[in-house]
Amino acid sequence: MGNPSRHLLGLEGVSAEDITVLLDTAESLIEVSHREVKKLPTLRGKTVVNLFVENSTRTRTSFEIAAKRLSADAVNISTSSSSMTKGETLEDTARNLAAMAPDCIVVRHPASGAARFLAGVVDCSIINAGDGSHEHPTQALLDLLTIRQRKKVPWKDLVVTIVGDILHSRVARSNLFGLRTLGAKVRLAGPPTLLPDQFRDFGAELFYDVRAAAADADVVMVLRIQRERQTGNFFPSLNEYARYYCLTEEVIARAKPDVIILHPGPINRGIEIASEVADGPYSVIMSQVANGVALRMAVLFRLIVPGSDGIRGSELSQASVTAAPGRGAATAAP
Amino acid sequence: MGNPSRHLLGLEGVSAEDITVLLDTAESLIEVSHREVKKLPTLRGKTVVNLFVENSTRTRTSFEIAAKRLSADAVNISTSSSSMTKGETLEDTARNLAAMAPDCIVVRHPASGAARFLAGVVDCSIINAGDGSHEHPTQALLDLLTIRQRKKVPWKDLVVTIVGDILHSRVARSNLFGLRTLGAKVRLAGPPTLLPDQFRDFGAELFYDVRAAAADADVVMVLRIQRERQTGNFFPSLNEYARYYCLTEEVIARAKPDVIILHPGPINRGIEIASEVADGPYSVIMSQVANGVALRMAVLFRLIVPGSDGIRGSELSQASVTAAPGRGAATAAP
Amino acid sequence: MGNPSRHLLGLEGVSAEDITVLLDTAESLIEVSHREVKKLPTLRGKTVVNLFVENSTRTRTSFEIAAKRLSADAVNISTSSSSMTKGETLEDTARNLAAMAPDCIVVRHPASGAARFLAGVVDCSIINAGDGSHEHPTQALLDLLTIRQRKKVPWKDLVVTIVGDILHSRVARSNLFGLRTLGAKVRLAGPPTLLPDQFRDFGAELFYDVRAAAADADVVMVLRIQRERQTGNFFPSLNEYARYYCLTEEVIARAKPDVIILHPGPINRGIEIASEVADGPYSVIMSQVANGVALRMAVLFRLIVPGSDGIRGSELSQASVTAAPGRGAATAAP
Repeated sequence: MGNPSRHLLGLEGVSAEDITVLLDTAESLIEVSHREVKKLPTLRGKTVVNLFVENSTRTRTSFEIAAKRLSADAVNISTSSSSMTKGETLEDTARNLAAMAPDCIVVRHPASGAARFLAGVVDCSIINAGDGSHEHPTQALLDLLTIRQRKKVPWKDLVVTIVGDILHSRVARSNLFGLRTLGAKVRLAGPPTLLPDQFRDFGAELFYDVRAAAADADVVMVLRIQRERQTGNFFPSLNEYARYYCLTEEVIARAKPDVIILHPGPINRGIEIASEVADGPYSVIMSQVANGVALRMAVLFRLIVPGSDGIRGSELSQASVTAAPGRGAATAAP
Repeated sequence: MGNPSRHLLGLEGVSAEDITVLLDTAESLIEVSHREVKKLPTLRGKTVVNLFVENSTRTRTSFEIAAKRLSADAVNISTSSSSMTKGETLEDTARNLAAMAPDCIVVRHPASGAARFLAGVVDCSIINAGDGSHEHPTQALLDLLTIRQRKKVPWKDLVVTIVGDILHSRVARSNLFGLRTLGAKVRLAGPPTLLPDQFRDFGAELFYDVRAAAADADVVMVLRIQRERQTGNFFPSLNEYARYYCLTEEVIARAKPDVIILHPGPINRGIEIASEVADGPYSVIMSQVANGVALRMAVLFRLIVPGSDGIRGSELSQASVTAAPGRGAATAAP
Repeated sequence: MGNPSRHLLGLEGVSAEDITVLLDTAESLIEVSHREVKKLPTLRGKTVVNLFVENSTRTRTSFEIAAKRLSADAVNISTSSSSMTKGETLEDTARNLAAMAPDCIVVRHPASGAARFLAGVVDCSIINAGDGSHEHPTQALLDLLTIRQRKKVPWKDLVVTIVGDILHSRVARSNLFGLRTLGAKVRLAGPPTLLPDQFRDFGAELFYDVRAAAADADVVMVLRIQRERQTGNFFPSLNEYARYYCLTEEVIARAKPDVIILHPGPINRGIEIASEVADGPYSVIMSQVANGVALRMAVLFRLIVPGSDGIRGSELSQASVTAAPGRGAATAAP
């Protein structure tokens, strides 16, 4: 699966072994955030740049806190692409940042493939914090960590249902790659316009009926309807979407009794998820957020610390398959 | 007055003893900012989140510097409420932040009651850095500290005149609570439209004539006319306001010879305060700013350090009384 | 040339000796950014405020990284002048910041003379990070450092050609002062509308033909065409400008065989510089950026560390000469 990489560009191509090592590392770092002194000296004198060309308070904050709890210096660059670059290309922006000798650039960008592109032009580590509709690997890893904490069975015995706008979701894609690599059964559910047939090539089962998709599921992951991205006419209205796909208690009742509910946040209450479900006993949404800090600490540790092993295969993630997954991507399925 | 609180939501309900301890702590921390190495290890490994849903460079910077001088990690979230939340509720935003295990969230928010609301949904400390027209307790505490430094007499012997838009001012309200609790005499002055009768219930004397209000005052505190908040027609024009209420040398001449002038900043020269007064010998405005860092260090210390005593009664502050003070609030008067 | 200054306001008036000491210090700090632990304890407990009233991700990031690699606390204030001040004057903003006891304020401002103005009203160090079309001394110093690294001959034997909008360029002005003080020959090239005759008073040779200006040059420095500043009609169109002044391989061929090409960035490919040149073997643009961190570390060190020598003569820089250089400024020429 390739040499150890100093980048985390996606989960497509990352081996089950490497994912497991990351989850193990993250699990061991959870307790740091519960100490009196929430700080390890691990990354002292390292520089982590958070380059957020697309707004994301939550993810940026999670990375910033993770970096600081490892004693790294965190530098934030949060801006829209237009105002940042003054006509400069993304490549030039990145090469300039890299010339300041950061150890890692965490990049969020509206264009699918941006993270991989940067990895090709700079010599520091790149972490993909979400690139267009391609991948968002740290989100998927924190989801995997949250699932593993709650479900003490082998991955192959788990049914995970992902509901929502699959077509445009980098969260869905990264989770799909990670879950399939680990061996879990994955069901994708959503309106046909947002769930192309090609996703079968990734080893997923497709459902247009959320109730069928939820039946006997161990895990239900609800995606955020990104109103700001709904420029196409993929469904008639938010009300219409909610009527058919909102995760309600009635839908959840069809899943396993010990089902857990995940959502990458921020949630739209009453649209993709009912408030009773989001705040209910099955919800592990707050655990996801807490795990996010530990997981990002683990990724920063693995990529930056000299002598650590990096992450193999991450550079295989193919932005080209975005929103139109083809055969190349299918190699991720185990 | 209730148990020690890990929050500072307002000064309403905080005892004279607790205020005095905070001022004493702040006084002892002033010298830290004059050292070669302006840093104490006190909050090493603690995380302080500055959640500023309303813009305030000055207050945010003061809190950030205070946190860093105590060796805490400071994380800034400065944004308008609309862009931050992407449709997310304030509660969800706060619970997400809290899941990242900060020790304290410093919150500035346009809605009165926002800080108290957050204190009810998260398990870290909340510091109110200004919520709507409700309270701004750290501003009042730094004002109290500045007054105490200059006036070496008991609080009960001091006459403090507060001039401006009392109705909408969280600074006026927090000062009123603090000053009355300590025993000072408080005069409120402003146009009748901005100075409702109910403020008498707090133990203040009301004046519509700033000259009468300033007569023999030991302290005059000028409030900022917040042009951006003047949506109602509370006075005909800024010129009209300035003509009657601007703190000029002529007004000051009626106060005690050793009067001191405070202003929470930023100042509108020639509107609520004349330049000669703002820059004159009676002005202690720059001392307020300097004291602000020390005071915020004291508050962070008292709330976060395990084994410190917290602040009793702070959770009593009632956002509900905003702009229409009623009987509940009157309990703050000693 | 005056007493040692705790400010760096410009290079006009700074002696060759002081410039050389700064370059030497910077050179010794370059290796810090290549260490495992990129951090010196030099400025521990110092506070550096980056006050950017004009947007500049690159320069702000460079200063922030420089401050953090010296263990200083860095506080960023990045905003437009209107939203920051809420009607407050620049003086009041600065005095308020200074009251929080920072050791240094790094200021970027659209108005020429802003940095010098601040130096007169606050008691901490001021570093000019670009003020209108006046000066940008740290940019020039990093350019000088980059030139000195590559050219192992005395300054007096070097011909440096600066091409572009000389009239509005603070980078050109600071470089002109520094290069002339060190003894280099300086050629300025650009359209006549952007290259007033008065620049001869600074000891520069003027060219309207970039090919003649580049002939046998040791160094060619290309300025950025700041589209956002081109409100006057200084040239007919960007295409027209590019046709006559774009630095192409054909132009470069006229320079010395070992010519080096500098650009302060961000670059407009195909407008003031051809991509082949920007990315070609003569380009030292990435070295400039890398040197920028070390140079800014050196400046922070020299200005802030007690017992270090400061920078003599920097306070002589005259904002008044901006865009209309007169006799006062000519004293900078050696």
